[in-house]
Amino acid sequence: MARGRFITLEGGEGAGKSTQARLLEAALTAEGRRVLRTREPGGAPGAEAIRGVLLGQGPQGIAQWDGIAECMLHFAARREHVVRTIRPALEAGTWVVCDRFADSTMAYQVFGQGVPRAVFDALAAVALEGLAPDLTLVLDIGPAEGLARAAARGETNRYEALDPDFHERVRAGFRAIAAAEPARCAMVDATAAPEGVAAEIMKVVRARLGA
Amino acid sequence: MARGRFITLEGGEGAGKSTQARLLEAALTAEGRRVLRTREPGGAPGAEAIRGVLLGQGPQGIAQWDGIAECMLHFAARREHVVRTIRPALEAGTWVVCDRFADSTMAYQVFGQGVPRAVFDALAAVALEGLAPDLTLVLDIGPAEGLARAAARGETNRYEALDPDFHERVRAGFRAIAAAEPARCAMVDATAAPEGVAAEIMKVVRARLGA
Repeated sequence: MARGRFITLEGGEGAGKSTQARLLEAALTAEGRRVLRTREPGGAPGAEAIRGVLLGQGPQGIAQWDGIAECMLHFAARREHVVRTIRPALEAGTWVVCDRFADSTMAYQVFGQGVPRAVFDALAAVALEGLAPDLTLVLDIGPAEGLARAAARGETNRYEALDPDFHERVRAGFRAIAAAEPARCAMVDATAAPEGVAAEIMKVVRARLGA
Repeated sequence: MARGRFITLEGGEGAGKSTQARLLEAALTAEGRRVLRTREPGGAPGAEAIRGVLLGQGPQGIAQWDGIAECMLHFAARREHVVRTIRPALEAGTWVVCDRFADSTMAYQVFGQGVPRAVFDALAAVALEGLAPDLTLVLDIGPAEGLARAAARGETNRYEALDPDFHERVRAGFRAIAAAEPARCAMVDATAAPEGVAAEIMKVVRARLGA
């Protein structure tokens, strides 16, 4: 049986990743593929428990993590997600559409928070053992527009409270990742209407993966 | 101000680490030292939250972790413990007495569960940035006797349900660690009465650290 393909959606707050993941799942399913849609942090029982710790309210309100500890938590959750959910699905021929993956840790913790890149590399090597997405769609939107969209949906998370410079660094991080790995990554303009973005995404998926 | 000294107590289930940590704290305090007694996993707010995930009941009863994910969780908790609690105390001149530290991850996950040593080394380098105990007391007791003691105290944890071979591997791991790092580690016979073990420990502490 042919191995499934592994597609990740990345980008800052309010870029529309969850919406596009649903639309991509629907489009691929309509073409007769088996698709698993999942998201990080989470996607496996242990990973969901870690998500609760990462995103939960700490004793003084929102928990503040040491940057390296936070990276380790994300990769611990990612390890469970890969071992329990993603790898078995790919091996069974299922396509996996994942809302955030390792690039988010690179953008938020390394570019955004200043965790050394060597820390990311060491943790990625340990947790992923070489697994990488076949295609990463980087949904690009200005932080001000993205945060306004997220706020309009009533979404809040602890990242949204961080200063505007943080979100600019995250966006620059995603762009740097896409520039460094053009064979894996595709930048997608996320400012258009969802249907337009979805059409652009399917064009990229067909061109890159033959879907 | 002189930096505090960092003393860890290690060993299998029922070796008496918690009791000896309390007795050591009392003895050092009686000599006029400022002492912080702490334990892992835990010892800082974020680390305690991770402890809850590590030791907590999962959806199917006791959570089963991938070995590498479990190592990452222990080191994420350890990172918070070191950054928030241990390092500031040592820098303030306080002696730190810690019930379990990195050697437990080596013994349980590497020797006991078969996680590659290279994984441990990579995570330890990232999380600890060179911090190591000044003295590690390895409390040695046969697994059968230790588990019986723990059971008599009504203590149970998910490790105790593992097979006897696992606990033999853990004990062998602690012994191998002590043999490999004799300048840092001291083996202590933990089968004696608590007062006798405490006297032996204070003899070692005086000899090694001049306390």
